[in-house]
Amino acid sequence: MYKFINNGTVTSANGFKAAGIFCGIKKKKKDLALIYSTQSCTSAGTFTLNKVKAAPLLISQEVIKSDNMINAVLVNSGNANACTGEEGYNNAKLMQSVCAEKLNIKPENVLISSTGVIGQQMPMQNLLNGINNIVPFISADGGHDAAEAILTTDTKQKSFAVKVEIGKETFTIGGICKGSGMIMPNMATMLAFITTDAKVEKSLLQKILFNAVDISFNKISVDGETSTNDMVTIMANGVSGVEINTPGKEEEFQKALNAVSIEMAKSIISDGEGATKLITINVTGANTKTDADLVGKSLSNSPLLKTAIYGEDANWGRIMSSAGMSGAEFTPEKVTIKFDDHAVLLPDYNIVVDELIASKILAKKELNININLNGGKFSSTWWTCDFTENYIKINANYRT
Amino acid sequence: MYKFINNGTVTSANGFKAAGIFCGIKKKKKDLALIYSTQSCTSAGTFTLNKVKAAPLLISQEVIKSDNMINAVLVNSGNANACTGEEGYNNAKLMQSVCAEKLNIKPENVLISSTGVIGQQMPMQNLLNGINNIVPFISADGGHDAAEAILTTDTKQKSFAVKVEIGKETFTIGGICKGSGMIMPNMATMLAFITTDAKVEKSLLQKILFNAVDISFNKISVDGETSTNDMVTIMANGVSGVEINTPGKEEEFQKALNAVSIEMAKSIISDGEGATKLITINVTGANTKTDADLVGKSLSNSPLLKTAIYGEDANWGRIMSSAGMSGAEFTPEKVTIKFDDHAVLLPDYNIVVDELIASKILAKKELNININLNGGKFSSTWWTCDFTENYIKINANYRT
Repeated sequence: MYKFINNGTVTSANGFKAAGIFCGIKKKKKDLALIYSTQSCTSAGTFTLNKVKAAPLLISQEVIKSDNMINAVLVNSGNANACTGEEGYNNAKLMQSVCAEKLNIKPENVLISSTGVIGQQMPMQNLLNGINNIVPFISADGGHDAAEAILTTDTKQKSFAVKVEIGKETFTIGGICKGSGMIMPNMATMLAFITTDAKVEKSLLQKILFNAVDISFNKISVDGETSTNDMVTIMANGVSGVEINTPGKEEEFQKALNAVSIEMAKSIISDGEGATKLITINVTGANTKTDADLVGKSLSNSPLLKTAIYGEDANWGRIMSSAGMSGAEFTPEKVTIKFDDHAVLLPDYNIVVDELIASKILAKKELNININLNGGKFSSTWWTCDFTENYIKINANYRT
Repeated sequence: MYKFINNGTVTSANGFKAAGIFCGIKKKKKDLALIYSTQSCTSAGTFTLNKVKAAPLLISQEVIKSDNMINAVLVNSGNANACTGEEGYNNAKLMQSVCAEKLNIKPENVLISSTGVIGQQMPMQNLLNGINNIVPFISADGGHDAAEAILTTDTKQKSFAVKVEIGKETFTIGGICKGSGMIMPNMATMLAFITTDAKVEKSLLQKILFNAVDISFNKISVDGETSTNDMVTIMANGVSGVEINTPGKEEEFQKALNAVSIEMAKSIISDGEGATKLITINVTGANTKTDADLVGKSLSNSPLLKTAIYGEDANWGRIMSSAGMSGAEFTPEKVTIKFDDHAVLLPDYNIVVDELIASKILAKKELNININLNGGKFSSTWWTCDFTENYIKINANYRT
């Protein structure tokens, strides 16, 4: 059983400290975050599928692949250290080793991550000074500062944590993340860093993380872009004394991690560039899991649907068309579509939309699009936001 | 050898007549087009891959599949007759048969096509009156009227024709088309209707049409959407007396059809919803044709790249990132990127952009993005437009 903690964050899990400071990579705002556990942690991670991978991501990927225990994640915003060649790779190595030195651990115990502008070398002096300065700052209250320091175009920091009770045992899972173009390769990236004071063996942790990411971060889209720097990691330090070593505990841990991950994913969408609405897309009745995902992905990436929702237009034709071009197998004549609980289309193209009811639903800040293919038993839930003039403004005028 | 004809259109090919009139499907503007040839034509066509197919499209697809000679294409705008069930299908059948009756031919000699709002029944009385009225109107000067009558959100009519000379023989290929969301399933669709007075056997015509569509209409994107009604057809009436019956003539015909198709495709992009710039994307140096296409498609669909170009920002990082997420195999370190002739990125992430030169290129109405993967010998050319606030405005406020 899990329960969300008010103002929960990565330091809600016992034994984790964190900090977020300004070190001069951005112009003014916090741009360096550190999450640290004295107790060594098992870790797991998922990384961008983009062929163009940032230097820090390559290095962290190696750490996660190895059996190293880790103690720290160091993250900078303002510069992605992507498309920076050998110099960029060496800089990322230095970032990792200097952080390790200050923490009295080995480089291979440190994960690193960067987000920001592509194709510019990191201002290393500022970064190295920053690493010097941030280490004394880490504290058990520092999660929210860290959450702030990883942001780019996001308008608010994104922190969550749940307390999990299994019988008499309790542990905590916390996470921070950032968007906010999903995924704008220039000044943003989807990053999430999760902590837990449960003890979880590495391969199990990796499995549980994959499952959670699959139904959360892999089910959101602001603009269909995948960045060079995307990553999600989890560290488990075992400080709670609770070991995830039975199928029952595994299930509870999975549920709790799913919940934290979904809230993080939704917070990224709610704060999507220019977004005014959070749209949950429920696809049901698909013949296969793949078909359900294809329809969900197509709808959540459709500029036409997303602009229609922005315009509060009950334009179910765009939903049908987007489902039709998704590549999923289904019988169009069987489809039903609802906005929240209000049916707008029934099978055999029986159009039952009540424009007044629909417009009330579409005026809401959060709404559901429910599409039932009425074919099989597979389903998939996705989240997206509406598509507004502000997305264009933000991205047309970014780098300059 | 081919040459574009000034003000060329579908009626530039001998033996074709056309008309475009208002019949009351739209509020005011022309909404019914007819292209007719007394001489029976071989025909070929390509149709949307969207699973949700409009009724008239299904009917025309059957006509093209058969060996029927055809004499006419009847097209209405303002109503897509898509997602309209059995009633919609019967209405489309009636549209075809009444047109045939008025022209004294059989229904199976008539292609039909519709574009406009999805999910609303066709106002049949207006349409049938329209068919009655349009037949007496057809003339050898009517191509431009027809081109106007097939438009939806397009801001201008799109007509082209080329005169082809092979030795002493001459014939003509003409075409009309419409966009302009590519492809907005609500009030737009990509349609193109091509005529020629050459004589071309059906299976050859189909092959040549596929080739032409593959490098023109299949290489454009306004917003990555594929409509329920997309179609491209060609009719060959043989009136010029020139028969395409040798490999040499086939090659000349192919080149000329390619040229007309590319001009039509580019005209759709130039008039894309909210577009202010026509962007040609040249991908070279790919290891396979598929890789070249994956990169071209990813770039031409990237909201981030398209907004950057709108913002006239030399943001090559978005090009790299979009190529990286395309699924194509390539070595990022080998890539070079140019805006027109100005190199901005050389291999090993050697950044050589001159912001002043780049900004002059980006200020142009037409520009080229040249990305060389420096891997193999395959290439691909795509066209797209920039992404502006007006795309959002047009699509947010459409249906209402």
